[in-house]
Amino acid sequence: MPKPIVLHLGDDIRWNHGLYQELQQSFDIVRSYSMKRPEFIEALKSKKFGDFNAIYRPFWNTGGEMGPFNDELISLLPSSCKIYASAGAGFDWVDTVRLAKNNIIYCNSADACTESAADAALYLILNTFRRFTQSALAARSLDPEQFRVATSSIPAMTHNPAGHVLGVIGMGRIGLRVAQKAYAAFGMKILYYDVVRKPSKLEEEIKATFVNTLDELLAMSDCTLLATPYVGDILVKREHFLKMKEGSRFVNIARGKLVDEDGLIAALESNHLFAAGLDVHFDEPHVNPKLAHMINVEVQCHIGGGSLESHMGFEKLGMENIMSFFKTGQPISPVNMHLIDQSKL
Amino acid sequence: MPKPIVLHLGDDIRWNHGLYQELQQSFDIVRSYSMKRPEFIEALKSKKFGDFNAIYRPFWNTGGEMGPFNDELISLLPSSCKIYASAGAGFDWVDTVRLAKNNIIYCNSADACTESAADAALYLILNTFRRFTQSALAARSLDPEQFRVATSSIPAMTHNPAGHVLGVIGMGRIGLRVAQKAYAAFGMKILYYDVVRKPSKLEEEIKATFVNTLDELLAMSDCTLLATPYVGDILVKREHFLKMKEGSRFVNIARGKLVDEDGLIAALESNHLFAAGLDVHFDEPHVNPKLAHMINVEVQCHIGGGSLESHMGFEKLGMENIMSFFKTGQPISPVNMHLIDQSKL
Repeated sequence: MPKPIVLHLGDDIRWNHGLYQELQQSFDIVRSYSMKRPEFIEALKSKKFGDFNAIYRPFWNTGGEMGPFNDELISLLPSSCKIYASAGAGFDWVDTVRLAKNNIIYCNSADACTESAADAALYLILNTFRRFTQSALAARSLDPEQFRVATSSIPAMTHNPAGHVLGVIGMGRIGLRVAQKAYAAFGMKILYYDVVRKPSKLEEEIKATFVNTLDELLAMSDCTLLATPYVGDILVKREHFLKMKEGSRFVNIARGKLVDEDGLIAALESNHLFAAGLDVHFDEPHVNPKLAHMINVEVQCHIGGGSLESHMGFEKLGMENIMSFFKTGQPISPVNMHLIDQSKL
Repeated sequence: MPKPIVLHLGDDIRWNHGLYQELQQSFDIVRSYSMKRPEFIEALKSKKFGDFNAIYRPFWNTGGEMGPFNDELISLLPSSCKIYASAGAGFDWVDTVRLAKNNIIYCNSADACTESAADAALYLILNTFRRFTQSALAARSLDPEQFRVATSSIPAMTHNPAGHVLGVIGMGRIGLRVAQKAYAAFGMKILYYDVVRKPSKLEEEIKATFVNTLDELLAMSDCTLLATPYVGDILVKREHFLKMKEGSRFVNIARGKLVDEDGLIAALESNHLFAAGLDVHFDEPHVNPKLAHMINVEVQCHIGGGSLESHMGFEKLGMENIMSFFKTGQPISPVNMHLIDQSKL
């Protein structure tokens, strides 16, 4: 019996060499390396990769050279393909609903970056309470007068997060981990809004309060954290910023396209919002110049989930998903399983 | 019987108005407002403030216009003066030993900024592990190519703090609070070095390990945190940076004059150290230009302890120290009590 075929997208793996050897023993591996879209489409049409059974994309920064994984590409995948296991938490670049229609399971590797993304969120939350960006810019100016002004003016307008309300939009793995950290390190009060309420045991551990509407959350939070997956549309609109508590803060570690940046800018310019922390941006790799020029806004290069530990974990979890599925019929971290006609797997 | 006199240095109080009214009821208050050194000396010589019994300095940024509170000033204080209660945690600007020789208790207000200073330390620790400054500089450049390079290069060289060793030099109130937070939020392993060992109960709560020598701490720490009071001399010298673990990090939230900045620069330039986070600087308000230009160094404007909560607490604790001392004979947070001949109070 021939081995199942795995299409490995992008670069060589870097860290989990032992596990990759196991993969090679059980699967035939074909490679795309760095194919642009026309070349990739041609390869699929000509069956260059054969009737592959799985797709493996170990990196966040390579293996995506063919652009959005949408109907145009998915319709060309062979019917033998059953699973697509990728690096990263977000899956805004791949149409997981369309994959499900072809009975292809999409697995992300959010677990591997939960810790790193939560730490990045904690960093940005702290930044917005304490205006650390404003202080860093003054220190980096090398102007002693700017240093003096920062030292004397920033403290009186900033707060300790302790005792303040963190409002989490999207209490998934990452949202929950941020809430746990903010509760443990700062003694913040946790509020959250999600389509699914957490078990009361989990709520109790961090004294989290569930609210029924987004508006309630916005009105009560001293810092609003956006931690949902991308849903194909803007979630935090202009009117939502106006509904946020006066003088409160906003942090986005989810996806830039979830947020109306002009609305955010207006809220910051009118001082309705005190500060913002943004790991992600609407038009990456372009950062909105207005936001980048504000001294009360921290901007980062979408590295929230990025650490060596998370990248090692992405690589590993992708292989484990594929190996587990072909061994037991069950992947480890699928995101579209509920949409799949499992009789066809 | 006349009321005791309090010399209030610097600006009006801002927040604790009710408590200040109580102070005014029990004490006569005389004011320096913003006196430079010659004027202040003249005022002391001419007994302009009368035979005052206490000094109160509610702010960190005002009330220090007369410069270092050293022998020249202390020798001019009236013998009636028994207590000096000031804002802030550090007391490198005041000779507390010399005050003790005149039987004057010096009280700081470190308690009020423990939380804010610990949060600042946590922020800098996170920064050094994840290279958030490098990422922010790339994002702020507005150059999409720099953004791309940051996104793709930073993760593979950075680590989650989780499971790494935080070495705390100086396990005082602030050092301990940082350790508690780093343990709770990141699951860091805590190592510490101090002249006094903490009770085992406290050690157990955060699984902290005491080491007998500074060298041991430096060799084992993934991030070394400096959190001691200023002792009048450089504590972390050139050779100490070389003794730090290869690829480790350094954070200073204590005082800039405790650190040989040239030694730090050399250790960063040779890549012996991976990153540094500095709230304080040798020659404030001047930041060392070499450090400020490094993309793996976060510089701040000595605002570690600075938040509204801490400033409100400084103001309050200063008054409480004075009121408590005149009511009960006991101040709340003295730092030189052990040096004072208490029979003369």
